[in-house]
Amino acid sequence: MPQLRISNEEYIRRRETLFTRLSDRNVQAIVLFQPHNVSYLTAFGFIPTERPMATVITPNTSALLVPHLEREHAEEFALVDRVDIYPEYPDLRHPMEFMKDLLVDLGLTSATIGVDAEGYGQIYGYRGPRIPELLPDASLVNILDDIEYMQMINSQEELALIRESCRWGNLAHTYLQEYCEVGVSETEISMRASFEATQAMIRTLGTEYRPLTFGMATAFAGFRGQIGKASAMPHSMTSNVKLQAGDVLVTGASAAVWGYGSELERTMIMGEPTAEQARLFNHMLEAQTLALNTLKAGRPCSDVDKAVRRYFKDEGIEETWRHHTGHAKSMLIHEAPFLDVGDDRMMEVGMVFTVEPGVYVPDFAGFRHSDTVAVTEDGFEWLTYYPRDLESMTIPI
Amino acid sequence: MPQLRISNEEYIRRRETLFTRLSDRNVQAIVLFQPHNVSYLTAFGFIPTERPMATVITPNTSALLVPHLEREHAEEFALVDRVDIYPEYPDLRHPMEFMKDLLVDLGLTSATIGVDAEGYGQIYGYRGPRIPELLPDASLVNILDDIEYMQMINSQEELALIRESCRWGNLAHTYLQEYCEVGVSETEISMRASFEATQAMIRTLGTEYRPLTFGMATAFAGFRGQIGKASAMPHSMTSNVKLQAGDVLVTGASAAVWGYGSELERTMIMGEPTAEQARLFNHMLEAQTLALNTLKAGRPCSDVDKAVRRYFKDEGIEETWRHHTGHAKSMLIHEAPFLDVGDDRMMEVGMVFTVEPGVYVPDFAGFRHSDTVAVTEDGFEWLTYYPRDLESMTIPI
Repeated sequence: MPQLRISNEEYIRRRETLFTRLSDRNVQAIVLFQPHNVSYLTAFGFIPTERPMATVITPNTSALLVPHLEREHAEEFALVDRVDIYPEYPDLRHPMEFMKDLLVDLGLTSATIGVDAEGYGQIYGYRGPRIPELLPDASLVNILDDIEYMQMINSQEELALIRESCRWGNLAHTYLQEYCEVGVSETEISMRASFEATQAMIRTLGTEYRPLTFGMATAFAGFRGQIGKASAMPHSMTSNVKLQAGDVLVTGASAAVWGYGSELERTMIMGEPTAEQARLFNHMLEAQTLALNTLKAGRPCSDVDKAVRRYFKDEGIEETWRHHTGHAKSMLIHEAPFLDVGDDRMMEVGMVFTVEPGVYVPDFAGFRHSDTVAVTEDGFEWLTYYPRDLESMTIPI
Repeated sequence: MPQLRISNEEYIRRRETLFTRLSDRNVQAIVLFQPHNVSYLTAFGFIPTERPMATVITPNTSALLVPHLEREHAEEFALVDRVDIYPEYPDLRHPMEFMKDLLVDLGLTSATIGVDAEGYGQIYGYRGPRIPELLPDASLVNILDDIEYMQMINSQEELALIRESCRWGNLAHTYLQEYCEVGVSETEISMRASFEATQAMIRTLGTEYRPLTFGMATAFAGFRGQIGKASAMPHSMTSNVKLQAGDVLVTGASAAVWGYGSELERTMIMGEPTAEQARLFNHMLEAQTLALNTLKAGRPCSDVDKAVRRYFKDEGIEETWRHHTGHAKSMLIHEAPFLDVGDDRMMEVGMVFTVEPGVYVPDFAGFRHSDTVAVTEDGFEWLTYYPRDLESMTIPI
């Protein structure tokens, strides 16, 4: 039976680890507002709206503040000792007044509180007071860097979920490649591939399977508009074009498993590549191989990007450079640290990165593979596992 | 030919309207960081990441600051006079230093600047200085309320896009209802319906059609886990359950058209409803009808929710109440103002709301229709147009 969730023990361990990290800062409680941080410590996945939600965790207890409409959902799924509710936002009494009640009830009126933000973000029209206005005697300590650091280091359980994600992203991408055909629209190919992969995934994993994130697809593969000349735009947006002979395609595939994801991207060519397409493809492949071989625990992240940028310079293709080599990848779409010349944080065992240097020639084509890999003592371990070579990426037409 | 985008003239009008609103505050330039605000004034839809993007608009010129990877994308699609780029985030020089260069170059060093935020949000690991640290002599004015107010009042062009969204959400929901069958999983039904509706949509609208938003589906219909007993959780999450006889289903459908959306939700029943299901369904329907009939320009939003809450009280079903009556709906998932007892803002012609009072009985079922409607002088106009009655919502098994 595949592992499909983070164990309760691990959620508890995360809280202990966080308090241990904060032991030199005299923090008596933690308040988290950002949805993925709440999920990270409570196992509760939810849809963020104008209604604030937050978790309060002390060494002895844990609580979740949610709007009334989330009561039963939180009581069933959240790993907390108590669920406090407020009626609604804005309603007649502001939700943050209920947050104050909760903090006061927990004896935190003049405590030192670690927070990821001073209040709920201004999203979907939300407005509201921040903790310093509610509890003027409390001292706030920003612990966003601490929780973010913990999230960078993936445990064995987290790696298992990312691997599970890679498996289904791989299947979705396999269907995507099979369905590529001249004259068919990107949207049709993408939706068919995502549908088939998801059908296989939910039948294999059964009803225990939960994506747990809102807006992230079950299994997915697509192009996001990077087709033909538009492949030269690294972040093009879906525009419903039809594939044509000679098109360069840049793809993307993933799957959501208990809130974790992965990133698999490939450059494919509709028909036999031209000499120029092959030249640029091979530069991209060389740069990716170089980047992969620079990964290693104990080296700074910047080393990887420096190696790639040096390659672009040495090969005289600097004008095709558009972005850094990669980013951490676990619960979010992009995460810190970055494989970027400006990020000198050290690579550590358990960090997961995308490795995706790209080569772009405006009005011609773009070339990018992205693989998701884990940093090890000696180098790296593949998590995605799709063919990378030009022959495998050539689609017969 | 259906209207599939906002005209350039309207984007220009929006800027003029905003400066007119701000004329009493001596604002010389506007800086917007929030992605949907940037799109609202520049027509540029993009994928937000760790790399900040922002627009700077003065009465005479407009600029966009983007990372290098968005250069060609922005140059092709953004309605601005200049596109400034920075290499990457974090890179060796922080992107906000380039923002400072741009502001200085526009002569705004000691200007009064209207902003939607003082800097880019802490998303995806981004960290960075805020405008006051970069330009200590500038005066900042928070104009988030102003731009949000403008976004509340939909123009004819915006209403046309929302209507187009409703059309395809309706088709997706029609397929969804057709495909509901005992023993089939929600994920399969949802993906099939979304696929079929999107195929029809892209063929009808052609290659001019652009969803323009990242992560919002082309055409979509689904359940998000609100099936059987879980329908009693208003914001349940997809859990891959199979439909069974007697299940109450709560659905949702939409489609993205040039960044605009709509919301259609229905309560459906697998097989002949029980007396208790029918009773609760009819309470929900009555409450929605009541809410709709309370809509009218010049009345406070709170009136609508007060009428609904009074209905719950009068009927003795207060314990089934979980959330306010609705929210504005245009470019985002939820928007202000809210049909909520705590929101006394006035309804105005051009405002678009979801109307969706819900009735929830834990461990039994939930009942909610949501329709998207426009406020008029005399009342409201339906934008969604799907059957609402119990007979139409009963699925033969």
